[in-house]
Amino acid sequence: MTPLFLRALQGERVERFPVWMMRQAGRYLPGYRAVRARHSFLEMCRSAELAAQVSLEPVELFDVDAAIVFADILLTADACGIEVVFPEGGPQIVQPIRSPADVDRLGVPDLERVRAVPEAIRLLKRALPSKAVIGFAAAPLTLCAYLIEGGGGGARDFARARTFAAEHPVAFQRLLERAADAIVPYLRAQADAGADVLQLFDTWGGVLPAHLYQSLVVPANRRVLEGLGPTRPPVILFAGVGAEARLEEALAVGAEGLSLDWRTDLAQAYARVGGRARLQGNLDPAVLLASPERIVLETRRMLSAVPPGRPHLANLGHGILKDTPPAHARAFVEAVKSFPVPAPVVRARA
Amino acid sequence: MTPLFLRALQGERVERFPVWMMRQAGRYLPGYRAVRARHSFLEMCRSAELAAQVSLEPVELFDVDAAIVFADILLTADACGIEVVFPEGGPQIVQPIRSPADVDRLGVPDLERVRAVPEAIRLLKRALPSKAVIGFAAAPLTLCAYLIEGGGGGARDFARARTFAAEHPVAFQRLLERAADAIVPYLRAQADAGADVLQLFDTWGGVLPAHLYQSLVVPANRRVLEGLGPTRPPVILFAGVGAEARLEEALAVGAEGLSLDWRTDLAQAYARVGGRARLQGNLDPAVLLASPERIVLETRRMLSAVPPGRPHLANLGHGILKDTPPAHARAFVEAVKSFPVPAPVVRARA
Repeated sequence: MTPLFLRALQGERVERFPVWMMRQAGRYLPGYRAVRARHSFLEMCRSAELAAQVSLEPVELFDVDAAIVFADILLTADACGIEVVFPEGGPQIVQPIRSPADVDRLGVPDLERVRAVPEAIRLLKRALPSKAVIGFAAAPLTLCAYLIEGGGGGARDFARARTFAAEHPVAFQRLLERAADAIVPYLRAQADAGADVLQLFDTWGGVLPAHLYQSLVVPANRRVLEGLGPTRPPVILFAGVGAEARLEEALAVGAEGLSLDWRTDLAQAYARVGGRARLQGNLDPAVLLASPERIVLETRRMLSAVPPGRPHLANLGHGILKDTPPAHARAFVEAVKSFPVPAPVVRARA
Repeated sequence: MTPLFLRALQGERVERFPVWMMRQAGRYLPGYRAVRARHSFLEMCRSAELAAQVSLEPVELFDVDAAIVFADILLTADACGIEVVFPEGGPQIVQPIRSPADVDRLGVPDLERVRAVPEAIRLLKRALPSKAVIGFAAAPLTLCAYLIEGGGGGARDFARARTFAAEHPVAFQRLLERAADAIVPYLRAQADAGADVLQLFDTWGGVLPAHLYQSLVVPANRRVLEGLGPTRPPVILFAGVGAEARLEEALAVGAEGLSLDWRTDLAQAYARVGGRARLQGNLDPAVLLASPERIVLETRRMLSAVPPGRPHLANLGHGILKDTPPAHARAFVEAVKSFPVPAPVVRARA
């Protein structure tokens, strides 16, 4: 039987809303921390067994409807010959891309270096026959923002990447295209290993001015989907901050699902998107640090915005925060599962 | 004669677009750094002479159309009995507000503690008879986000403040109201000292989920404007990230000007706002780190989006970055000044 999450993503009517949490295999979980205490972050990414083990933990603890494979969005860069290190403070690009001449350093991916990811997906598929298994990659802009900035540039909103885009628009576009062409075989390997769904994380797409989002980010994301070809699994695009104002542009990418950031008004998003994509999200992850009573209330508030008949994909509006108590994550998951899906409106016959 | 910036803000047709830059009195300028080398940040805020001196520097260097008084958005907190320290890494609240009981610690402002700000405005008015002088304050949400987070929470998107809002909605609203009531006399003192314009910085309003922006942030901002009364100077609201999707809500505050973040599509914003407010912004400050040629091109691209007949207030879409070469700031200002304002469309008579 097709897993609930997949049926919902395909637009079928569902008996309850499926639920998982972005970054659900992470530091807030005791099993993850135990593995991490014995292994470096990169060892965890390079071992299919460890990656599968930490990916399974939230499914076992909370019975979420989908497992997302444990990996890092910068593994793609590493596979393409860009050295990445993973110190405690977050990943760093050893030699960032700072000039047009640097662009060609982003090579064709050596899939051997990331083979643990599809292997972990195979293990997850075997362990979870009734769940959806999600593979993922960074979207081109988000990957390139790191490549240029050199690290997580959240506090600076990736100002170096924005300067590069303004100074070298042609080279910037070439970099995005190379990134898209590297992401395609990496995602295809995950699909071939059995991933039911692919999620493209464009967390930082929204840091660019609107005209560059339109002219560069959307085409790069489309290039990934087109590169995957007609037999690809369904794709969910997480469009991050700013997507609230760019729903049309995000829809133009052609993904089956659109994952919304926590700031977005869900009712308005449904009104604007209509049936053109399934929507995923978008509880503020900061709510999971409040009391379970508030978590239940806010989860119900969120789900109340889903119009009757729409198969919502319940999730957070961003990755779960590392200081989230696991019991609070469970409260969220259970609040979704116990929420009564509204029946579609049936018009009375005259 | 009324300064150009004010005439534009009042909606008059102007011969060229006025221009200034958010955070134009800052670390990227040599005079500022020389003062800062001899004085602590707080000494600079507490001395009307020093504050006026650094506020004048960008006007003297670039002949911008407005001077904004040098001050820090957390001076309001300090005046209200909340201890703030200013180490190199950015301001810190010594004892952040973390519970509903803490809310009452935000007292009534002691305007003596911030008297250098209106005094500096008096000095600026005297020195700059033909320019607009801008006073400012943090908007309630932005102030409260710091009070709860304890410091700049950009990288974490003020997750603590978001959790507080979810956990204690009533106390959170009370905190916003107290903040609004503290901001009013501080801004009124600046108006009384001669400020031609007041800018309300709601840089972080957009980190809240849309429903809280609507139910809490907008009323708190309105409370500030209503508190200032009918004889107030014109107000510009800088609504920061997320405002792109919340133009209607930002307009509902009732400010004469709306300052747009760099992500916002200016043409779309004009189409949606119409004549209901003047728009300010919004060149990406990261563009000022590109070459002067690109700065000129991008500035022209931005200004080309202004419909004929509209008096645009040219500015950056966020504060100027500290590594901006002053010559690049000048290139921006001059590109604005030399841009031909499009004539209003005159309909042919039948």
